[in-house]
Amino acid sequence: MQVQKAVITAASPSQNTLPLQQLVDRRGDVKTALQLIVEETLAAGVEEICVIIRPGDQEAYEQAAGTHLGSIEFVEQPEPKGYADAIHQAKAFVGNHPFLHLVGDHLYLSSTEVPCAKQLIQIANEFECSVSAVQSTRENKLPYFGIVSGPLVPRRNDVYEVECVVEKPTPTFAEQELVTPGLRAGHYLGFFGMHVLTSEVMTAIEQLLAEPSAEKATLSDALAILSSRQRYLAYQVDGTRYNLGLTYGLLNAQLAIGLSGKDRDQILTELVELLASRTEGERVK
Amino acid sequence: MQVQKAVITAASPSQNTLPLQQLVDRRGDVKTALQLIVEETLAAGVEEICVIIRPGDQEAYEQAAGTHLGSIEFVEQPEPKGYADAIHQAKAFVGNHPFLHLVGDHLYLSSTEVPCAKQLIQIANEFECSVSAVQSTRENKLPYFGIVSGPLVPRRNDVYEVECVVEKPTPTFAEQELVTPGLRAGHYLGFFGMHVLTSEVMTAIEQLLAEPSAEKATLSDALAILSSRQRYLAYQVDGTRYNLGLTYGLLNAQLAIGLSGKDRDQILTELVELLASRTEGERVK
Repeated sequence: MQVQKAVITAASPSQNTLPLQQLVDRRGDVKTALQLIVEETLAAGVEEICVIIRPGDQEAYEQAAGTHLGSIEFVEQPEPKGYADAIHQAKAFVGNHPFLHLVGDHLYLSSTEVPCAKQLIQIANEFECSVSAVQSTRENKLPYFGIVSGPLVPRRNDVYEVECVVEKPTPTFAEQELVTPGLRAGHYLGFFGMHVLTSEVMTAIEQLLAEPSAEKATLSDALAILSSRQRYLAYQVDGTRYNLGLTYGLLNAQLAIGLSGKDRDQILTELVELLASRTEGERVK
Repeated sequence: MQVQKAVITAASPSQNTLPLQQLVDRRGDVKTALQLIVEETLAAGVEEICVIIRPGDQEAYEQAAGTHLGSIEFVEQPEPKGYADAIHQAKAFVGNHPFLHLVGDHLYLSSTEVPCAKQLIQIANEFECSVSAVQSTRENKLPYFGIVSGPLVPRRNDVYEVECVVEKPTPTFAEQELVTPGLRAGHYLGFFGMHVLTSEVMTAIEQLLAEPSAEKATLSDALAILSSRQRYLAYQVDGTRYNLGLTYGLLNAQLAIGLSGKDRDQILTELVELLASRTEGERVK
């Protein structure tokens, strides 16, 4: 399976300014979140990129893309009809090719030398099917994630045959239906915000969009359909994801990137100085 | 002296996206840097605000202003002709009133209960003249700041009669001409990015703009003229400024704000977890 296309969704009205935010990368260069996401894609060898945006956002995104502008095709989601509909806007771009899908409000930090998206694409290449990146997710985080379950693939401790996909399950449902071998008690396989999908997911989305509750259709719903039709795996990626949409999401992402990069010592020094001066200020008061 | 107007400059081509960046304030609310700067102004009792922007930036700034939009008048600087010219765009807005001036790429954190801009306005009210906020600045930082010098005002240890204003002096010049009583050796009074100015500064700027080197005219040049014509003070503000334009400027500002706010413990906890997990990751490798 050759993955040459990527679809990045950034059209959610509440999250559309996150890819425009500025961070400093591991090498100390100031970049927008959009640039960092595009670089995750490029580092995985995927160079044709489609970004799904809100109408009116293209100019700001073009500025935020910087030198990567030439790799990007912008496609508008005409109305805010949800996540599945946003991905479906890339149908013409995707054609009948498999594609990497990243969400525009997350940043990823690999724990190894291999970037997260590249790890995922290696699994897709090896097994020749759709595969979602997942991470072990504690029960108390279930309300924030799509969750999958299924048995491990033979002779692998990080790849699962997905049998069940549920968006934001209740703890009771999860305990009854989604327990997964090899994870700690009370832990489930939660989406990492990164997938390699075959173009059949577009057909699954079309089926969902034809239903009366179409506006609430999520990618999880589409993947549940996909998993009933073709092989679909989950890969426990060796890395961490940072959701920029959380209150301190940008701060945590920046700290994680900075502390894993070349300016680690500088950041630690400034942090200690800041803690010292604050403590001093409070003592004086 | 009643200060009722504020002028915020945000038209520099290299800094114009900084006020659009998102941070979390001391109460834990997500805001843009522009909102935080406007709130610094409002907290000082100044409710008529003029923001000088680049042509084409107004829509993004209107979005970034959020609920403060009604307090703001946007004025474009037609061409990037420098800092003094940017302030001069507010001439009609200012009229013959004194005004608070803040730069759009800095955030301020008071060490007391009184916000920095409010401290400054209290001094302007007391002395009825122009006054710039300054901070003790080490010799090695001279290339980044406008520097003032002069004697302390009688019976004050934090207010100076400005006799000399120089933009980015050399260490040699500073040592010969700008040594200031009451500061540690090798320290000078550097601009904090916050001023209360009488409308006569507009006349001083016009004089500069009529000269051949007009494009390089800085606020320091205008303040040097102003100081020769009327009383002009410097106030050593009780607080810290964060320049968002530095490489880790946003990170440092966010950490300083967060660690001085209600979520201090949460941020410290996440920081310790991050340091622990990073160290673990590196140990395993």
